[in-house]
Amino acid sequence: MIHNQTLDQQFNHRSIRAFKPHSLTKEQLTTLYTAASHTSTSNFWQQFSIIHVTDPEKRAAIRKISKQPYVGANGDLFIFLVDMYRNQKIRQAAGKDDGLLHTTDLFQQASEDAILAVQNTLTAAESMGLGGVILGSIKNDPLKLIQVLNLPKMTFPILGLQVGVPDQKPQLKPRLPLQFIAFDNEYHRDFQASDLADYDKEVAQYYDLRDTNKRIDSFTHQIAGEKLDKGDNNHRDQLPDAIRQQGFSQDW
Amino acid sequence: MIHNQTLDQQFNHRSIRAFKPHSLTKEQLTTLYTAASHTSTSNFWQQFSIIHVTDPEKRAAIRKISKQPYVGANGDLFIFLVDMYRNQKIRQAAGKDDGLLHTTDLFQQASEDAILAVQNTLTAAESMGLGGVILGSIKNDPLKLIQVLNLPKMTFPILGLQVGVPDQKPQLKPRLPLQFIAFDNEYHRDFQASDLADYDKEVAQYYDLRDTNKRIDSFTHQIAGEKLDKGDNNHRDQLPDAIRQQGFSQDW
Repeated sequence: MIHNQTLDQQFNHRSIRAFKPHSLTKEQLTTLYTAASHTSTSNFWQQFSIIHVTDPEKRAAIRKISKQPYVGANGDLFIFLVDMYRNQKIRQAAGKDDGLLHTTDLFQQASEDAILAVQNTLTAAESMGLGGVILGSIKNDPLKLIQVLNLPKMTFPILGLQVGVPDQKPQLKPRLPLQFIAFDNEYHRDFQASDLADYDKEVAQYYDLRDTNKRIDSFTHQIAGEKLDKGDNNHRDQLPDAIRQQGFSQDW
Repeated sequence: MIHNQTLDQQFNHRSIRAFKPHSLTKEQLTTLYTAASHTSTSNFWQQFSIIHVTDPEKRAAIRKISKQPYVGANGDLFIFLVDMYRNQKIRQAAGKDDGLLHTTDLFQQASEDAILAVQNTLTAAESMGLGGVILGSIKNDPLKLIQVLNLPKMTFPILGLQVGVPDQKPQLKPRLPLQFIAFDNEYHRDFQASDLADYDKEVAQYYDLRDTNKRIDSFTHQIAGEKLDKGDNNHRDQLPDAIRQQGFSQDW
């Protein structure tokens, strides 16, 4: 294995969910935004934006949506947006129609811009000695979130990111061995659940050793578990409605 | 601005599209896959995989789909998959139905897993002195690509990534100034295309200075241009069909 500072940070990534009661400095914020802005962007269309949520009421509302007590608690909260509002305005000023902006293709491209930027921002934060957690849970109630953030059409909240000074030291969570996720030329269709027996033991041991432990569970047991059966009684089934409402994927 | 090795690499990211005729070593591959595998994953469901495409025929077919001469030329080519095939098998082995696997929500979550991993892999490569380019163009003909890669249902090719030893030194492409992409608490609805006059000059100058220059163009002129009018005569309008065909987003 090759090692350098960046790689070692990546190999040791842990999501941090408990932060000390410090806010990021203006310099730290500018540094994170600059790293985000230099992310690869599809066709140079730069279709994402970031909302830094400092307003206590909005933070509380997002915490309620996500149902995670740490969301909007200590640490800085960012919501990454798919953003075609800007490009729609540019086209309007040039006397052009919206072209492809309302297609599924463009929604995917802009989502990719935003999601790649999330990872770059988290990597930047970790390199600065900060920690962070990517928040998919902001989409537990997507229509409500759009309302809370007062988002115009042609924008969509795709992921949250909370960043701050770590106040916990979680264990490294074991990932699927590489032979199950990286293939040469052909997808490995002959995968069997039983191939993961050793990995299951490793995951169960991880939960067993975890300080703040609630469950001791294998990987395959989690995949077969009730969270994938029917979800957590959230409004995530409204994602298509929310995407359509914001003006996207009108061709679906 | 804060500086360290990782941040400076991020601030100086350029997409590299010309590579020397070297293939990655096994150690380099393992290092990239390890960085990818440690990416944050929604609910610990680990719903992505990577296909390393070395087969010359497949590389040529993907080059034809992407319509980019550098795709599958020098450098190592990876296709990142949304992958619920593995988790479907695990649920079947446990006697469970597919639960949420066919929902838009799960397709988004798995896409996020895969896209975050793409950025992490590119960051890892750049830290090793390699260069790379993220390939959205593999989706110019999504049904054809699925056929070329012989992908089973419950997998979907979301992005490509080509990595290698750089054989070019492109200029740094100027990004939107931060005030246009990072907001506090409220989305800035009062944006006007004319606010970008200075940025437009900067982008035009970038194209003017570029060695392998084909166009001299401002940002707003590109956004108002024909590529966003109607695309490039590709099959990207078949993305919804391709996603559905693979078993995803059945609730849309």
